[in-house]
Amino acid sequence: MINPAKYPNHLLKLIDVLKKLPGVGSKSAERFAFEMISWPENRLREMAKIIEAVPAQMHHCPHCGCLTEESCRFCKTNEKAHSICVVAKAKDVFSIGATNEYQGLYHVLGTLLSPMDGIGPDRLHIEKLLERIQLHEIKEVIIALDSTLEGDATSLYLKSLLSPLNIKISRLAFGLPMGSSLDYVDGGTLARAFNARSHY
Amino acid sequence: MINPAKYPNHLLKLIDVLKKLPGVGSKSAERFAFEMISWPENRLREMAKIIEAVPAQMHHCPHCGCLTEESCRFCKTNEKAHSICVVAKAKDVFSIGATNEYQGLYHVLGTLLSPMDGIGPDRLHIEKLLERIQLHEIKEVIIALDSTLEGDATSLYLKSLLSPLNIKISRLAFGLPMGSSLDYVDGGTLARAFNARSHY
Repeated sequence: MINPAKYPNHLLKLIDVLKKLPGVGSKSAERFAFEMISWPENRLREMAKIIEAVPAQMHHCPHCGCLTEESCRFCKTNEKAHSICVVAKAKDVFSIGATNEYQGLYHVLGTLLSPMDGIGPDRLHIEKLLERIQLHEIKEVIIALDSTLEGDATSLYLKSLLSPLNIKISRLAFGLPMGSSLDYVDGGTLARAFNARSHY
Repeated sequence: MINPAKYPNHLLKLIDVLKKLPGVGSKSAERFAFEMISWPENRLREMAKIIEAVPAQMHHCPHCGCLTEESCRFCKTNEKAHSICVVAKAKDVFSIGATNEYQGLYHVLGTLLSPMDGIGPDRLHIEKLLERIQLHEIKEVIIALDSTLEGDATSLYLKSLLSPLNIKISRLAFGLPMGSSLDYVDGGTLARAFNARSHY
């Protein structure tokens, strides 16, 4: 309804750059922009400084691909582990770390296979993974990928790639999410939970 | 679930500043931050530059309070109008402007009365409004405020303040929103629409 051409030029620029955030459309970007305009100058300056410093302050570890500031604490803490947990994104490492269920190495693929979007195996950080499996004498590779079409495709690809190495390969369990009611669980999840039922 | 203490320091700073955007909680801020980390350096630099330039590039007009870059086109375009439309926020001016229903002056109050949050009449730009009513020989004040508790309180306050001036005071109509079905309209709206029914 609102004709954006009527907004002042700098406001349009601000809205445009905010729209690049994930899940932020025109409406949200406008709301953010109008709020930011009312912010005090020092808050705006601080925000700009933090954003500008991202490339200098944050790196992906060249070995595991995790997010790191100076030396990679994920590589360092579990230097002597013989298991490696393969995830798609750097964020997943923090989620798994927070469960306190795993002490071992991580490896960030960077993305999942998605032939529809033209993302093939060459976009995954696979070579480094194979190198590290050798280097750390890895005994188990834990595949911790999404339970989606892309996650399944990537898991299968990894499985076929790693099987010849004669190491244990596991994937996160599928089943009912905690606190869920059978009434609200989809058929696919229920089927997988049923098949993977365990002795009780 | 995720222990934020485990994130790198700069990431925490970025998440903190993003959480200041309206409606953005920890989860969204984390999503934004992880996405931004993967942005190319020049996009981050551009975003920082735009944000930093907001105070220099955008002002509120000292007369009407509208958002403006150099001279205020809202004051200029309708210089000779004898009606003034009172709104709460600068954004509302663009929304009303986009309807093409109104050619006249605007006045931005800056906020609505909200005694619960300690926002009293002293926080509204009222003095300037009274000055401008005199200066422009205003014949009609159109109150275009939210149909909320705060909007109603502010409208009543304005009405009592302006009544002695002997000018026409109007407020936006209440009724059914366009395209709505009676099934989904709340009782309050229906009652107001019923009372304000017009000859058809």
